[in-house]
Amino acid sequence: MDLLSALSLGELALSFSRVPLFPVFDLSYFIVSLIYLKYEPGSVELSRRHPIASWLCAMLHCFGSYILADLLLGEPIIDYFSNNSSVLLASAVWYLIFFCPLDLFYKCVCFLPVKLIFVAMKEVVRVRKIAVGIHHAHHHYHHGWFVMIATGWVKGSGVALMSNVEQLFRGVWKPEANEILHMSFPTKASLYGAVLFTLQQTRWLPISKASLIFIFTMFMVSCKVFLTATHSHGSPFDVLEGYICPVLFGAASGGDHHHDNHGGHGGGHGGAHGGSPSALHSPLPSKSKEELSEGSRKKKAKKAD
Amino acid sequence: MDLLSALSLGELALSFSRVPLFPVFDLSYFIVSLIYLKYEPGSVELSRRHPIASWLCAMLHCFGSYILADLLLGEPIIDYFSNNSSVLLASAVWYLIFFCPLDLFYKCVCFLPVKLIFVAMKEVVRVRKIAVGIHHAHHHYHHGWFVMIATGWVKGSGVALMSNVEQLFRGVWKPEANEILHMSFPTKASLYGAVLFTLQQTRWLPISKASLIFIFTMFMVSCKVFLTATHSHGSPFDVLEGYICPVLFGAASGGDHHHDNHGGHGGGHGGAHGGSPSALHSPLPSKSKEELSEGSRKKKAKKAD
Amino acid sequence: MDLLSALSLGELALSFSRVPLFPVFDLSYFIVSLIYLKYEPGSVELSRRHPIASWLCAMLHCFGSYILADLLLGEPIIDYFSNNSSVLLASAVWYLIFFCPLDLFYKCVCFLPVKLIFVAMKEVVRVRKIAVGIHHAHHHYHHGWFVMIATGWVKGSGVALMSNVEQLFRGVWKPEANEILHMSFPTKASLYGAVLFTLQQTRWLPISKASLIFIFTMFMVSCKVFLTATHSHGSPFDVLEGYICPVLFGAASGGDHHHDNHGGHGGGHGGAHGGSPSALHSPLPSKSKEELSEGSRKKKAKKAD
Repeated sequence: MDLLSALSLGELALSFSRVPLFPVFDLSYFIVSLIYLKYEPGSVELSRRHPIASWLCAMLHCFGSYILADLLLGEPIIDYFSNNSSVLLASAVWYLIFFCPLDLFYKCVCFLPVKLIFVAMKEVVRVRKIAVGIHHAHHHYHHGWFVMIATGWVKGSGVALMSNVEQLFRGVWKPEANEILHMSFPTKASLYGAVLFTLQQTRWLPISKASLIFIFTMFMVSCKVFLTATHSHGSPFDVLEGYICPVLFGAASGGDHHHDNHGGHGGGHGGAHGGSPSALHSPLPSKSKEELSEGSRKKKAKKAD
Repeated sequence: MDLLSALSLGELALSFSRVPLFPVFDLSYFIVSLIYLKYEPGSVELSRRHPIASWLCAMLHCFGSYILADLLLGEPIIDYFSNNSSVLLASAVWYLIFFCPLDLFYKCVCFLPVKLIFVAMKEVVRVRKIAVGIHHAHHHYHHGWFVMIATGWVKGSGVALMSNVEQLFRGVWKPEANEILHMSFPTKASLYGAVLFTLQQTRWLPISKASLIFIFTMFMVSCKVFLTATHSHGSPFDVLEGYICPVLFGAASGGDHHHDNHGGHGGGHGGAHGGSPSALHSPLPSKSKEELSEGSRKKKAKKAD
Repeated sequence: MDLLSALSLGELALSFSRVPLFPVFDLSYFIVSLIYLKYEPGSVELSRRHPIASWLCAMLHCFGSYILADLLLGEPIIDYFSNNSSVLLASAVWYLIFFCPLDLFYKCVCFLPVKLIFVAMKEVVRVRKIAVGIHHAHHHYHHGWFVMIATGWVKGSGVALMSNVEQLFRGVWKPEANEILHMSFPTKASLYGAVLFTLQQTRWLPISKASLIFIFTMFMVSCKVFLTATHSHGSPFDVLEGYICPVLFGAASGGDHHHDNHGGHGGGHGGAHGGSPSALHSPLPSKSKEELSEGSRKKKAKKAD
């Protein structure tokens, strides 16, 4: 911290918080988001057979956070699409990722060192979005703590929180797996970040917004780059949650983290409700067994393929 | 009626309609709503494994009516969450119901005499919500009859009308059973109540709003308390509908009521589309048989468990 | 074109664009929309057993375009329901189509020559809706190209784009078939029309709005009447898309059109994702085989009925 103060952290953070995001950082955000879209099973066939559906999904991946935040705050959900240059940039990235000859663009941006740079820049955008979202919500609801946290959360999580809708556009439906049940690291971090920024905005956290942006960005960048480099789906919050959740919410929470490790990005599988000891608490005959058996049936069907 | 007028019904109704709902009545509303959430199969495991998803469902159960009404009227759907005290109260109730040591709180509030008091108080809140919702819609649309009825209906029914969304949050998906297909008594009563209050608001019903609130609350309280005390899922409207529906909509409506009795709160089952005589009217090969067979397959699967 | 100019096309188009739509054209729109609702398997039983659900579906069929456009532009989604006369007219049509003694009304309006007239008039309404929607969006977002196109598209396509929601109201859920994946001719034509009207609105297309309305209406009427008369589900765009799509989006698009021919209005089937050569592009093990097998399982189940 001495070193940081010697570098005059305040000024550094201030200038960092004023770096314009468009176009370079936004471009990275779009590239990483659409790489994740291309990871989804069936998305390449979709782009060949139904280019319009694929483009709409791409727009949800790039601008989902704006759509959700506008929906929450009662603004036109299509509002952000009036930024033609952003939409055109995202469309260009979509086209290059899915239709570039020889898959050249995709191979370049997926080359790990390049991808790590983009991932880092995406986190810069994410943190800035959270801060802007909470500032915006604070403008409407001065004492609306929950409104601020919710707005910051959806601004940070983006399409993840509407993954069921996005899947439906692609003709996929996995009700048993949604981001709220199986939170990935960015979603959880966005939630915790939204809480921090809300505390800052309401002056309960004695720190300037620029500094908080700087510190939280550093945290997100280092975590996400590390997780991407190691192909890990874990989360640095697991240890902390492993201590807090059993105290607050009873013992079964540990099992959730275990399953999160399998679930991955928007993934998850039907077995997540399987016969844990907590099922004994249920006051009614539970459906989890049926769900489990259906889950394992699906898994078998997959293996049979 | 003589007795009532002797008691100066007008003044009684007026003071009744001015009783503040927060915090005591709201508290009862939250308690009863969250008891119903805990009745849902799998909700206890959910609260242990995914506390955030469980909390979000709890908020939908407590504030679903505001969310839906705001969505209909183009206001921020998160608007009501700026009432921090209400949200904190609902969260406290959620925590006590799901995580109280020895399940003490839940056992207390589920003790029938106590529960009946809460159920009665919940109906007071429901009727007031319908009245306020219609007043609010009337403010925006002076002659919008359908807008008023719809707003009153969603304000009265609350989470029931968005049960599919609420289930999706919990990873459950039952498309064949939604509240519009299998209306429970509160949903139906809210609809009829919304029609009455709309008639009152547009001065077609020559009665003061306070009196209508009083009378309709008495009706709702007595019905709901009776139904809860007898563990019945019937509806006092069944007889009336049994006469009117066949005249207006043909003969098959009777079967619906029969099924409603089984369906219960947010329940219902796949067999509701089964081979009734009305299937003969269908101009196209119907899917009902397939649905029926799927329904019975599921039932068998359940029994096999 | 000489003949048209001799008839002073400009004046003809201008008076055509000023013909009031209510009540005659709107009536045709409601009739044709509700005929399509009655075509849906199970909709007749629904109207007998659950009249309220059936009425709500009918309203979505008649006013879906307004609901979607209001949602996009942040206006009350129930806004259009303040037009009591339109809602009453649509309700009357719904009642006559589903509950008229001896099915007389339905048989009359489904008599092909009569139906063709209604179909033609429905297209007049559709084109006018697109034009009005784009004008409205242009009023809010002067340079929002994407906003204008999206608004025009949803105004033209109507309930088709929200078919999943509409099906859910009826207790039906077909995630593998949505209108974005299997676009019917009206949906596609609405999209292309929205692009044209957006170009006109932003003065890139040197033609008056009245003339564009006239020409596009003529195109839509002739196409839709021809398609309805020949019971065809093809699309005049197929040839054009067959040339353009392979160049822009790779070779697999041709298969889509083939499937569209089978899919029909809001239909489609699980086999659309079947093992095409494009599956080889997939970077991950694809789910298409599983979906295919499920699709064929369903088909067999249907045949077995």
